[in-house]
Amino acid sequence: MKKDSNALPKKVLVADWQTLTRTFIRPENDAARATLIKYMEQILFGLHDFLKKHVGFTEEISLKDLADKFTDTLISENPEKKLADVITDLIEVIAPHAVNVASPYFVGHMTSAIPFFMVHLKTIVAALNQNVVKIETSKVVSVIEKQVLAKIHRLIYQKSDAFYQEHIQSTQTTLGCFIENGTLANLTALWVARNSLLAPKNGFEGVEKEGLQAAYRAYGIKRCVVLVSKRGHYSLNKAGGILGIGNQNIIAIDVDKDNKIDLDCLQKTISKINDQGGKTAILAIVGIAGTTETGSVDPLFKLAEICTANNIYFHVDAAWGGPTLMSEKYSRLLAGIELADSVTIDGHKQLYMPMTCGMVYFKNPTIMDAVTYHAPYISRPGSVDLGIKSLSGSREANSLILDSALKIMGSRGYALLIEHGIETAREFAAEIEKRANFQLVTRPQLNILTYRLYPSDLKEKFLKGDIERQITINEKVNTVNHEVQRLQREAGQSFVSRTTLQTEDFPGHDIVVLRCVIMNPMTNIEILRDILDEQEEIYQQAFPRLDPST
Amino acid sequence: MKKDSNALPKKVLVADWQTLTRTFIRPENDAARATLIKYMEQILFGLHDFLKKHVGFTEEISLKDLADKFTDTLISENPEKKLADVITDLIEVIAPHAVNVASPYFVGHMTSAIPFFMVHLKTIVAALNQNVVKIETSKVVSVIEKQVLAKIHRLIYQKSDAFYQEHIQSTQTTLGCFIENGTLANLTALWVARNSLLAPKNGFEGVEKEGLQAAYRAYGIKRCVVLVSKRGHYSLNKAGGILGIGNQNIIAIDVDKDNKIDLDCLQKTISKINDQGGKTAILAIVGIAGTTETGSVDPLFKLAEICTANNIYFHVDAAWGGPTLMSEKYSRLLAGIELADSVTIDGHKQLYMPMTCGMVYFKNPTIMDAVTYHAPYISRPGSVDLGIKSLSGSREANSLILDSALKIMGSRGYALLIEHGIETAREFAAEIEKRANFQLVTRPQLNILTYRLYPSDLKEKFLKGDIERQITINEKVNTVNHEVQRLQREAGQSFVSRTTLQTEDFPGHDIVVLRCVIMNPMTNIEILRDILDEQEEIYQQAFPRLDPST
Repeated sequence: MKKDSNALPKKVLVADWQTLTRTFIRPENDAARATLIKYMEQILFGLHDFLKKHVGFTEEISLKDLADKFTDTLISENPEKKLADVITDLIEVIAPHAVNVASPYFVGHMTSAIPFFMVHLKTIVAALNQNVVKIETSKVVSVIEKQVLAKIHRLIYQKSDAFYQEHIQSTQTTLGCFIENGTLANLTALWVARNSLLAPKNGFEGVEKEGLQAAYRAYGIKRCVVLVSKRGHYSLNKAGGILGIGNQNIIAIDVDKDNKIDLDCLQKTISKINDQGGKTAILAIVGIAGTTETGSVDPLFKLAEICTANNIYFHVDAAWGGPTLMSEKYSRLLAGIELADSVTIDGHKQLYMPMTCGMVYFKNPTIMDAVTYHAPYISRPGSVDLGIKSLSGSREANSLILDSALKIMGSRGYALLIEHGIETAREFAAEIEKRANFQLVTRPQLNILTYRLYPSDLKEKFLKGDIERQITINEKVNTVNHEVQRLQREAGQSFVSRTTLQTEDFPGHDIVVLRCVIMNPMTNIEILRDILDEQEEIYQQAFPRLDPST
Repeated sequence: MKKDSNALPKKVLVADWQTLTRTFIRPENDAARATLIKYMEQILFGLHDFLKKHVGFTEEISLKDLADKFTDTLISENPEKKLADVITDLIEVIAPHAVNVASPYFVGHMTSAIPFFMVHLKTIVAALNQNVVKIETSKVVSVIEKQVLAKIHRLIYQKSDAFYQEHIQSTQTTLGCFIENGTLANLTALWVARNSLLAPKNGFEGVEKEGLQAAYRAYGIKRCVVLVSKRGHYSLNKAGGILGIGNQNIIAIDVDKDNKIDLDCLQKTISKINDQGGKTAILAIVGIAGTTETGSVDPLFKLAEICTANNIYFHVDAAWGGPTLMSEKYSRLLAGIELADSVTIDGHKQLYMPMTCGMVYFKNPTIMDAVTYHAPYISRPGSVDLGIKSLSGSREANSLILDSALKIMGSRGYALLIEHGIETAREFAAEIEKRANFQLVTRPQLNILTYRLYPSDLKEKFLKGDIERQITINEKVNTVNHEVQRLQREAGQSFVSRTTLQTEDFPGHDIVVLRCVIMNPMTNIEILRDILDEQEEIYQQAFPRLDPST
């Protein structure tokens, strides 16, 4: 029954039990071992050779043409290809159309080269294949996860030795948790905040059990809101939608000229809400340590003061900026983060881990009790089962990667990377300001900045023009930046991203900006100059007779 | 600035810029390449050697003692260890205290051996480090993801060629999505169901935007409920809590003697709700294709009929059983799944992918419009950015692993594994029934069964006893099974799990059962007999004079 007929012509692959089960046992003989190693060699260095040649998000083949090649909707009954051919295809056919995020010229997104040992560590995690949802499928790995959670918690909160000795391996308390990404980490934080605000009381069994409708009734409120600057990540809106409070109730507070939350606006919003007689509850205020678009850091200490004064839950989205805490030189930029009720940090961003790893930390080790779930077959009360307090279910042991990486790099190693990014961004900002045809739009606070091509003649005309003229010029400049970004990306040499901001320079009008994220240690000022040169060149070629008067 | 002092004594590791940046470039020279390969060899075969020796969830060192070893809460400033030492530690010190989920004697959970090539594929994903949240950091990989989503969608829904050609690469529609695990896949499905039910109408802008309170008002309802059998996964309760409908509104319907949802009970519950004059809305009915505890499959076709008749959203949680569709022999067990509005399938379960990979599929390719999010810097309207309709943000390209695995295995390869599990479970059930001191508690429908040690003398006494005597005997039997499971696990030779069920045999009383999940192709009836033998032996030794009369 388990053996297929062997009467088929050679080269036709047939699924058969013997071949199949062999893939479940690692081979004992040297030849078979050598083959497996050869594949790894191909993966490590075959991909490497490609990555050297190929840069950025190249459009050599259009996305449309590419998509047309992947329209096979049938799972083949028998194997389509041998393993060796599948691996070769991945390396030679697929990878050249992936994006070389490891290039030092790829400075458009929060994805970069990672140390090569991260790939080894990920391989170990895959080979062990532990499931940290429960101790029975992870054992030591769950214990290590609790240790690394304590290490990062300490980096943020700097509690006492006694505090950590009490909680690090406690089966009752939780210093934080791992999850797929920052989006889900932010969702976890607001889930905890919601349940803490709408907790059980006087016969009401809590929002988690009875739902929002009952919770609003029990607390006599009509809505919950979350206050965050307009630079807040869209995951917060999504969390508002998912949690049932409505994404329109994630209220965007204006920012100041440095793209930090405007504290006056915030205070006024809080007062207005308080004046409504308690019908609106403020679920949380979210501070950002490294906004996605501009890398700005909100005044966390002041935000914490406001939260304390008003008894409001304080979450900090440090998905990007969190690891800055490892730099003695720049950790002060995040001062006040230790006062947050919860903090999001992403591992696949500035901890240089492979895709993906999100984390959320809590000041209060019992606050996650508000999101506890048990089942008779899993996550038993009092066990080390990490699935008890988690948005997620089954989960791979990425904590093992972080634990190892911290040992290999040391906080000083991470600090060197962070400092390189911040300092290179500053150099780059100075370079942009030196060039007549560019404008620095947002000065880097961490290692992200935005700027735009803004030809000097247009700058002058803008300043002298009336509002209609200014609108026309701004639209032209927007078109220029939109096009230059696209053409540079398609040329495949380098990649910056673009976004749309509103700034004090021309309030109320959208400005298309180029966005640079400097995290790759191989990205230096020479490379960034090359990128500016290329942009200027593209501009000259694509807009030879740009005339704002027409 | 970036160079540390070299004046320190030898062997003290110092974080320095040169060493650090070298880890970001793959080495060019043969010696360095050989070192990287040597690490991989160590990972592939070092772990292998350990896995051969070490079986199950051994308690050679207690969890408490283990936890005591991992209480370091300080991140070392300089590197603690060299890469080579970290890898050796992981293999020689850490791995022996992990759980050997790959052992054929590890039959307690839905985690098993995976084909070795899965580790290679995961390594490729890590080395490419694409982020499929957006096309600019993934390109071809997002396109491949859309293709593999179509393949699995077709496996479930079997729509026409024309349907797939329209949607497979459409930037407007979505056949499904990948996410970290089945818990989040179920959450996604219920999120979509909630937003579809409480959609925008007559000036109401939808639950996602305005929140549940406003939605209930707009629709004139007081609560939403989800109906699912009491064997439903706890992730559904969690989803109810998160989505704001309240986890008490996830209503557990009784099961029949085969642990399938009792359709009469379901019908009665629906009628009762309908009689309340529309104050309660049924958000969804969830059918299960492979319950976690017993592997039972609900009557999906009948559930679909009920949903259609009552205009209710129908979700199927096939996290476990979904891949059964690849077996021509057994796919009929899931008949009716093609009528579901959405289906959850886990990749790390019966698709034998590494931890972790969840998926959810939707019959209607536009239904995910209800959970669309955009941002100016990401997920732009009309783009291929897969983050537009997703609970998650940044996400690794596990779809590439599934796409490759389907090519390497063919559906027939997967079918052989599925059929082995189902047929071995049947053999095992027969073996249990043959043994006087055991009782088969739930007969396997797929490849999961539960049973218990039930010494023959106690069986007789139970049948003859009055209710109080029966309670005493049942408690003793529960203790026996609880203890035997623990002692077997601690002996480290094999691992079955345990859970608590209520059955028709002794309604209203908890019965502790041993639970077996047979998915490892190396697990055969001889191994399962060994496990029973060991349990009987442990029982004889641990309970030499068990006397139910005392």
